[in-house]
Amino acid sequence: MKKLIPIVLATACAVSAQAKIVTQTIAYKQGDATLEGYLAYDDAAAGKRPGVLVVHQWLGLTDYEKHRAEQLASLGYVAFCADIYGKGIRPKDTSEAGAQAGKYKGDRALLRARVNAGLDVLKKNELVDPRRVAAIGYCFGGTTVIELARSGADIAGVVSFHGGLDSPTPADGKNIKCKVLVCHGADDPFEEPEDLTAFEKELRDAKVDWRLIKYGGAVHSFTQPMAGNDNSKGAAYNERADKRSWQDMKSFFAEIFQ
Amino acid sequence: MKKLIPIVLATACAVSAQAKIVTQTIAYKQGDATLEGYLAYDDAAAGKRPGVLVVHQWLGLTDYEKHRAEQLASLGYVAFCADIYGKGIRPKDTSEAGAQAGKYKGDRALLRARVNAGLDVLKKNELVDPRRVAAIGYCFGGTTVIELARSGADIAGVVSFHGGLDSPTPADGKNIKCKVLVCHGADDPFEEPEDLTAFEKELRDAKVDWRLIKYGGAVHSFTQPMAGNDNSKGAAYNERADKRSWQDMKSFFAEIFQ
Repeated sequence: MKKLIPIVLATACAVSAQAKIVTQTIAYKQGDATLEGYLAYDDAAAGKRPGVLVVHQWLGLTDYEKHRAEQLASLGYVAFCADIYGKGIRPKDTSEAGAQAGKYKGDRALLRARVNAGLDVLKKNELVDPRRVAAIGYCFGGTTVIELARSGADIAGVVSFHGGLDSPTPADGKNIKCKVLVCHGADDPFEEPEDLTAFEKELRDAKVDWRLIKYGGAVHSFTQPMAGNDNSKGAAYNERADKRSWQDMKSFFAEIFQ
Repeated sequence: MKKLIPIVLATACAVSAQAKIVTQTIAYKQGDATLEGYLAYDDAAAGKRPGVLVVHQWLGLTDYEKHRAEQLASLGYVAFCADIYGKGIRPKDTSEAGAQAGKYKGDRALLRARVNAGLDVLKKNELVDPRRVAAIGYCFGGTTVIELARSGADIAGVVSFHGGLDSPTPADGKNIKCKVLVCHGADDPFEEPEDLTAFEKELRDAKVDWRLIKYGGAVHSFTQPMAGNDNSKGAAYNERADKRSWQDMKSFFAEIFQ
């Protein structure tokens, strides 16, 4: 963990060729729970800049999300990895991961409270322009950023990467104020076609500004190298879809952070 | 019609800040039929460059497609608008348009022959790098570029904008060698859900490299200002989806023309 130097720079946002990514572990609270997130930004950039919240997959906050935050910092954003599960709660296997993810998927109010607590940390960061904030999430985190949107969060946009899109309360689509980009594996066996249809209907009925991209040949977890490369398992890395969805996210940010 | 100056430049492709778009009407043949296409390129650019075939909507080759070709020329491509219907066959109303489009949608072999004839003109153009060629199409033209791909054409990619995706011969998906990008209005009432499902299955079964983007709030003809702005008619312009799909096409080209 490098030291965070708390400086406020008032000049226009610019990313130096000499990027120096600074990272910091940040403890914060939601209700009585202590959560532990991870901040990354380019110390060579000047001025307030857009912020991106990163929400973890079902395994909790791991090096994977931290690396994504560092990639975002290299692009000139302040990135903050939220911790939904709580400090020290880092599932060691899929059984523990399923229990944790299931707890929050079964209690959307708590999930929304947890993700909004992370958003709050990001928006209050002195380097962040709070009018230009977005959230991205992977798998469970994709579900979570959609719930963040459904909570009525005042942000510019959310991006779900292979997130579950089902909703126990589709009427909450009417709360969505931000733009929505869904990056979906066309062969993802974990997303039921009827959930996808219901999700589209929810956004359509609520007149949300949304886009959904289906990547051919991609299954669940297509952005995650640790998922291996066997599509028959239903979850596998797909370099092509990973690169394209990252590019699609960048185009989305270029539009919403104008 | 400006005069085409037939020069071959051997240096690397570059687009000058002083772009000068040259256009030319070109007559060519498919079987006994005479077709009349429209070429556009930047005369201030040097060297062979990627070529883009543009296929018209059901009204035939109009100023709309010519303007798209000029936009593509401004981006540094050699663009050629194919003429599927034949010289002088320019429907004056939707009844005539329906008859013409119906003729070719009902005879996919003829449609493939016609679009390949246009591709041939483009690939043989002295300014075009024939290894870097793509095709885009609108509505009927979207259907046509998908048929071009199904014909086994040796090109880098095709982009359909609100094209009909149904196929009388889904097994022909196995012939597709190029990458496929489908830009689709999420609320397009003219595309049956089962045709969309069958299309995805065709590409999946054939292991094609494909992507499909659904633009929320967009109906049929979303790239065409002349379609008006009344979504309830099923076809309407949608500036947001128009701009995004054009950006998505540019990202696609950046990838396939590397």
